[in-house]
Amino acid sequence: MANTRHKKSMIRKRVSKRKSGTKNVYFFGGGKADGRGDMKDLLGGKGAGLAEMSNLGISVPLGFTISTDVCRIFYENNKRLPKNIEEDIDGHLNKLEQLSGKKFGHSQNPLLVSVRSGAKFSMPGMMDTVLNLGLNDKTVQVLSDLTGNPRFAWDAYRRFIQMFSDIVLKIDKEQFEKRLEKIKRKYRVKLDVELSAKALKEVVGDYRKLVNKKSKRDFPQDPRKQLFSAINAVFLSWNNPRAVFYRKQYDIPDDIGTALNVQMMVFGNMGDKSGTGVGFTRDPATGVDQLYAEYLLNAQGEDVVAGIRTPKQLESLHREMPGVYRQLTKTAKALEKHFRDMQDFEFTFEHGKLYFLQTRTGKRTGIAALKIAYDMVKESLIKREEALLRIEPDHIEQFLFPVFNPKEINKFKQITKGLPASPGAAAGKVVFNSDTAIKMSNRGERVILVRKETSPDDIHGMAVSEGVLTARGGRTSHAAVVGRQMGKVCVVGAEDLSVEDNKQLFKAKEKVIKEGDYISIDGFQGKVFLGDIPVISSEVIQVTEEKLKPDKSDNYKIFSTILKWADKTRRLGIRTNADTPSDAKIAVNFGAEGIGLCRTEHMFFQEDRIHLMQGMILSKNLKERQTYLDKLLPIQKEDFKGIFREMNGYPVTIRLLDPPLHEFLPKLEELMVEIKELELNGGSPRVLKKKKKILNRVEELHEFNPMLGLRGCRLGILMPEISRMQVRAIMEAACEVKKEGIKVIPEIMVPLVGMLTEIKAQKEIILEISKHVMKNYKRKIKYSVGTMIEVPRAAVVADEIATETDFFSFGTNDLTQMTYAYSRDDAGKFINAYRERKVTINGKQVEILQNDPFSTLDQKGVGELVKMAIKKGRNTSPDLKIGICGEHGGDPASIEFCHKVGMNYVSCSPYRVPIARLAAARSTLAKDKQ
Amino acid sequence: MANTRHKKSMIRKRVSKRKSGTKNVYFFGGGKADGRGDMKDLLGGKGAGLAEMSNLGISVPLGFTISTDVCRIFYENNKRLPKNIEEDIDGHLNKLEQLSGKKFGHSQNPLLVSVRSGAKFSMPGMMDTVLNLGLNDKTVQVLSDLTGNPRFAWDAYRRFIQMFSDIVLKIDKEQFEKRLEKIKRKYRVKLDVELSAKALKEVVGDYRKLVNKKSKRDFPQDPRKQLFSAINAVFLSWNNPRAVFYRKQYDIPDDIGTALNVQMMVFGNMGDKSGTGVGFTRDPATGVDQLYAEYLLNAQGEDVVAGIRTPKQLESLHREMPGVYRQLTKTAKALEKHFRDMQDFEFTFEHGKLYFLQTRTGKRTGIAALKIAYDMVKESLIKREEALLRIEPDHIEQFLFPVFNPKEINKFKQITKGLPASPGAAAGKVVFNSDTAIKMSNRGERVILVRKETSPDDIHGMAVSEGVLTARGGRTSHAAVVGRQMGKVCVVGAEDLSVEDNKQLFKAKEKVIKEGDYISIDGFQGKVFLGDIPVISSEVIQVTEEKLKPDKSDNYKIFSTILKWADKTRRLGIRTNADTPSDAKIAVNFGAEGIGLCRTEHMFFQEDRIHLMQGMILSKNLKERQTYLDKLLPIQKEDFKGIFREMNGYPVTIRLLDPPLHEFLPKLEELMVEIKELELNGGSPRVLKKKKKILNRVEELHEFNPMLGLRGCRLGILMPEISRMQVRAIMEAACEVKKEGIKVIPEIMVPLVGMLTEIKAQKEIILEISKHVMKNYKRKIKYSVGTMIEVPRAAVVADEIATETDFFSFGTNDLTQMTYAYSRDDAGKFINAYRERKVTINGKQVEILQNDPFSTLDQKGVGELVKMAIKKGRNTSPDLKIGICGEHGGDPASIEFCHKVGMNYVSCSPYRVPIARLAAARSTLAKDKQ
Repeated sequence: MANTRHKKSMIRKRVSKRKSGTKNVYFFGGGKADGRGDMKDLLGGKGAGLAEMSNLGISVPLGFTISTDVCRIFYENNKRLPKNIEEDIDGHLNKLEQLSGKKFGHSQNPLLVSVRSGAKFSMPGMMDTVLNLGLNDKTVQVLSDLTGNPRFAWDAYRRFIQMFSDIVLKIDKEQFEKRLEKIKRKYRVKLDVELSAKALKEVVGDYRKLVNKKSKRDFPQDPRKQLFSAINAVFLSWNNPRAVFYRKQYDIPDDIGTALNVQMMVFGNMGDKSGTGVGFTRDPATGVDQLYAEYLLNAQGEDVVAGIRTPKQLESLHREMPGVYRQLTKTAKALEKHFRDMQDFEFTFEHGKLYFLQTRTGKRTGIAALKIAYDMVKESLIKREEALLRIEPDHIEQFLFPVFNPKEINKFKQITKGLPASPGAAAGKVVFNSDTAIKMSNRGERVILVRKETSPDDIHGMAVSEGVLTARGGRTSHAAVVGRQMGKVCVVGAEDLSVEDNKQLFKAKEKVIKEGDYISIDGFQGKVFLGDIPVISSEVIQVTEEKLKPDKSDNYKIFSTILKWADKTRRLGIRTNADTPSDAKIAVNFGAEGIGLCRTEHMFFQEDRIHLMQGMILSKNLKERQTYLDKLLPIQKEDFKGIFREMNGYPVTIRLLDPPLHEFLPKLEELMVEIKELELNGGSPRVLKKKKKILNRVEELHEFNPMLGLRGCRLGILMPEISRMQVRAIMEAACEVKKEGIKVIPEIMVPLVGMLTEIKAQKEIILEISKHVMKNYKRKIKYSVGTMIEVPRAAVVADEIATETDFFSFGTNDLTQMTYAYSRDDAGKFINAYRERKVTINGKQVEILQNDPFSTLDQKGVGELVKMAIKKGRNTSPDLKIGICGEHGGDPASIEFCHKVGMNYVSCSPYRVPIARLAAARSTLAKDKQ
Repeated sequence: MANTRHKKSMIRKRVSKRKSGTKNVYFFGGGKADGRGDMKDLLGGKGAGLAEMSNLGISVPLGFTISTDVCRIFYENNKRLPKNIEEDIDGHLNKLEQLSGKKFGHSQNPLLVSVRSGAKFSMPGMMDTVLNLGLNDKTVQVLSDLTGNPRFAWDAYRRFIQMFSDIVLKIDKEQFEKRLEKIKRKYRVKLDVELSAKALKEVVGDYRKLVNKKSKRDFPQDPRKQLFSAINAVFLSWNNPRAVFYRKQYDIPDDIGTALNVQMMVFGNMGDKSGTGVGFTRDPATGVDQLYAEYLLNAQGEDVVAGIRTPKQLESLHREMPGVYRQLTKTAKALEKHFRDMQDFEFTFEHGKLYFLQTRTGKRTGIAALKIAYDMVKESLIKREEALLRIEPDHIEQFLFPVFNPKEINKFKQITKGLPASPGAAAGKVVFNSDTAIKMSNRGERVILVRKETSPDDIHGMAVSEGVLTARGGRTSHAAVVGRQMGKVCVVGAEDLSVEDNKQLFKAKEKVIKEGDYISIDGFQGKVFLGDIPVISSEVIQVTEEKLKPDKSDNYKIFSTILKWADKTRRLGIRTNADTPSDAKIAVNFGAEGIGLCRTEHMFFQEDRIHLMQGMILSKNLKERQTYLDKLLPIQKEDFKGIFREMNGYPVTIRLLDPPLHEFLPKLEELMVEIKELELNGGSPRVLKKKKKILNRVEELHEFNPMLGLRGCRLGILMPEISRMQVRAIMEAACEVKKEGIKVIPEIMVPLVGMLTEIKAQKEIILEISKHVMKNYKRKIKYSVGTMIEVPRAAVVADEIATETDFFSFGTNDLTQMTYAYSRDDAGKFINAYRERKVTINGKQVEILQNDPFSTLDQKGVGELVKMAIKKGRNTSPDLKIGICGEHGGDPASIEFCHKVGMNYVSCSPYRVPIARLAAARSTLAKDKQ
């Protein structure tokens, strides 16, 4: 997106004529620079960064940047540099030689340079680079003497020849590799590094013969000629096929050209007063404000990275090179102050002189991100708004969920991967059903419930498990939704698992895992490991669950302070999806300002109610059904009272019964098998008769596509007695808790409405019962009536529906299902495939599906319907309150969308509330920026 | 809709000031009238009609109309008539007396009048009417003498008192009923008609006492006073509660007022030179141009209708009253000529003088409708366009389907009613499965297949049955769709049937029907009868199926001529949904101009292919799958060749494989039961193993909501080898038939597309394979690539999708399913309930669902998405060809919508093609009218 915006401004720029007298070459180093950090258009990213560091007085290797204009001129001039520019470059080369005290081809102090491309936008590895330019038969010897390392010098030379020949002379790399192999065979070594200086000298000889043979001339010994050839070649590499393809892929214009940096080579391996290292201005793991660096003496940058020698810590630098140490700490501080963020930098010192080669914003853990942002605000280095913009929602998440101990994880074997559905890390013994889960959990054992897919029957088992792993289902499948709701780690749709629960085992590829074996699942990434990986728990969670005092946790202090800043910034309200008082309490502790979705059906799945519910469904007539509803009424009322008490003063949106009734009954196929078994085994005729009766009703209620069947308000319209019972329970609960002094704000929500007539039919019942209850209790309750917008038709006729509703709540799970025609329970397999397969659109390779639309709201399709509904709804009902209660309410990108389209609130599961608070604040800031 | 339009124009009218000098009262009769037929605003419908007949010189009873303006003045004037208007009425009353030679209260020739309301829009029974006004103690005696029927005269008088007292004096009707009952008890009779003249005279006496008691004055004897009181009362009845409610219900404005007609009473029971009758200007059953009338001498209108005496035919009138006969035939002809349509009229002759009391356009059968329209065009009475506008699509349908012999149907008992899904009439023996159906059919027996619901397994059974009856499913269920496709009579969703196919019986309420019992089903109305009702077959069908020469059928001549007129008028193309050469042939004979939907999956359900298909699905890997696809290729190719040959020169849209794969496999629950049985009974381990393997795959493919699962282009993307095989079959077939000289226009259609990337992915395959095949065959085929628009998201992003498609075809079945979230297989039960339950919207009672959205396109919701898709699609691709191939393509209201939104064609099942041709023509005419 950023790129598209830039693309336009670049094209505009190009159109404006180049001013005469504009500089072509910009010098940098020695405490100053011709250019500046904000001149990326002209100097490219790398050139601008080097200029910025120079201006800051930071020691960088001297050099100059040839501007992007020159690249364009180069192409306009038949891919040649005009004379005047060549002269300009010569002038800067002279300046470089003078300031460095080194000279191209000098026999005591030869200048070696790198020639690197550097466009405005990073195009890593797409264009060419030449290092160690300036080496020739003479200077290689000087380098060998200076470093006291002939092997290094000759290796550098043979690499330079190879690189230069490839890039500039266009001689096939293969040819060089062949010669190298030959000499390796001769000396009977396997690796390049095993070749001695003598052998490398022989390689150089061979290489030079090859160059002579292929290019009909000797390898160029004149460094100036080397330089101009390299500049030409690097400019040409702007248009090599992979660079062109890359630009297409990332929407980078073809005509902006690249800048080019010619920079003095410095060496950390010039003896014991030389060295090289990397550092962070603060601790990237914890965020503590303390310089962190590692280095090696007499070494090159790659030695640190490669881990061949163990790098030393900052403390020894203090002892070994106190001057370098002082300069390093001072510079690091300056860099951070200048860039106003934690920096990740590279440095080299050559004969005691320190150079900074690179600096950039450092990656950090979530813990560190919050700590650094918090501290920098306290240090007045950044403003609160900047702090909020620097914290990613993922960072917040890391405060919430247990994680595998990173020191341990490499010891364990990953066996498969599924979709990460509910984050966190969990380890335990494999179980295949709820009963075993409960039994083992009662014995104090940690368990992971492994199922083909979960159903309401598994809820008890999930409740006692550390995590859930399923072979089927997508990120909004039952397991995933309930998992997130419960805050359980959950990995779903691990398609290459084959669960054979009758044999109490599952297979992952060839591996067989049995009940009781330990596995560990990673809900952040969907990885599944064999074994019991130790887990680190979260302080924030402990505080939120009231198991730890807030003042006992520094983490919590940072976490909660930053979220308070977010609250002051955000415009969107944050609510939660909660069905029980305990969920509601956690959500409030996390900062929720109301319940956006209380699903009454989850209440019915509890063990003491499911039988009443089944009885209600199996009833032969209204009278019988009413007796069951009468028994359910007081139970529901108590549920609502508990929730109202926790949400004192906050609105509570309660959705009337939504799912198809057969979800409460046994499965058709299982019943059929049971009956067949009873018949063949001569089972009790009484039991058989009962089962057959149930089968009869299950068959009657069976639906081919229950998602599109008798559910939602359709139930409430066909069996108004159910709606009546529920409304009565809500309003009686409201009256009773109001008496206790609780401030109660019920919002009754009708699901699956597609027509004005449907909401009207249910509203008639709601108004009638509410009036009746309030009269009985002699209390007045301010309540409102609204609808889910989850059927595409509801979005289309939202103007009509809004005339009868106080609020809309977008059920984007269902809306996504219907808009895409994706069943969330079945779509896993093709969504996964769709996210891997690619097609070419406008010359670009894109995945068929770039995001899982159940995780991140599809703004182009589903979002268009959301916008339409908001516009139409507010058109006939300007005061309409609008929120979202689908899973997307906890997804940052989707929250930004909700903010943009003008919703009043988002509602998400309790554990997503802090993330939503931050995301909402960031949305406001993003909007302010526009 | 018409009403809404009128409402607006009325309100506009009201605003314009009333011209001074406008007439208040309009006289009619005696060959002329003050008003005209087009003055309904002022004279109301009845008044305008009477004026029109008078102007035509048709004898109507003399009278005058008091205009709707007067009604408004009446209300503005505190519900009283101003003096000047009273005088105006008096003047017209005098004119009436003069012209009729009768006089109010006259002792030899008393004038009796009716006072009737008559608004612009018919409001049947909502306002009041007073008959026989002018009767009093004196004139009742004269009437008795004149008719020679004292019983009639006194009955008329007692009715007049009762009616007048109720309407004008507001005396409770009950009171009169009580007195009447008392006298009936006294004379020991049960019915009013059994009372003698003497007894009725006694009733009149009692009534007058009652009036005196209640109104404190005598029953008014002065006819003029009676008249003005009645006029006041009738004007007041404009605002009685039921009239107000009725106007709200039908969107009739409250302020237009009613007109009022005062008309001389005439009596057909004034002796043997009097009589009364009804007639049609042409035969309403056959359409033959021949006056049809029935009459009774010395009788009142109700005697003809009541059927107490058998009416006489026109021929005897010729003998009995030659003058009346001549006048009648002449007038009937004139009426028809004037109104330019077949008329249904009522007449009375009093002392040999003929009066026409009413004329209106006559109802007729479909056969008659076409015959009359055809003849009237030939007679130059109407234009072809008018003829087309007069023929309803239902009329066409009557030419196509067998019907029960109407003379026989009353002899049979109706046992239940379902949804009429595929029209026609069928009778046969009940069977419960395909095998029995085939067996019995092979024995030459007619059978009706009765199922809970049908599945692809039932196709063979359906093919040999006369009709299909199911207990479940909606009008687009499998049974319904296939039924219509096959032209089989089909009644579905007969919810109170309980099918116990294991016992070979079904129950309809208490009745038990066994295999082999005869039933008859009516696919027009959904009725199910016990027994074998004789059926009349259709000539048009016989011609279309090439079993009868066209010139042997007059019906066919009329039918085909009218449809040729339709073809010249319509703008929409008409295609058909056909999967086989024989379907294609019938559709072409019916006038189809292409195939809009050829469903390749239906081809796979045939017996010789389903095993290959199952093998393909059960394949363990691509290689194995490919071997099955290789076997399917030549079979598919032959299918396409057959279709291409039939459609020579017409485009053929072929949809790639669409349904979920598990539709081709056995059902999960049945397999599970089979396996349990094999296990418990110790079945063959080899069979068991095989079954378990199938179960495994069925479980893998099992989906909770297959409608939203792995189907459509998702299949073709995940298993591109299937698309490759199908495209190859299409293109090879095209090349091979082209060689035969056939003009072939294949259009390859990708189903269930929701994203640009999906159509792109499939298009890549289509282009690649097509290129390859054409190169191999060295032939160039002009083909196009398009997509179904059936997922709501596709409509939203149609602008993107259109960039990669040559055509859109709206799959409105699925689009309706997704937009409403209604599974077509499950929605029957709540759609039925929704069409019965009512809610109050803006004070009006409306059904929750006014139409079944699977039968008639939901213009407000689904239609809005269709419009959006067309607009967006044509925006990026102006030449996009757009059609519809859902079931709605055969529904007249939906066809009109398709016309309006600018589609290029509609596609429907072969047997709907003629209906679509007519509906398309009517749409053009409707549009031209606007």
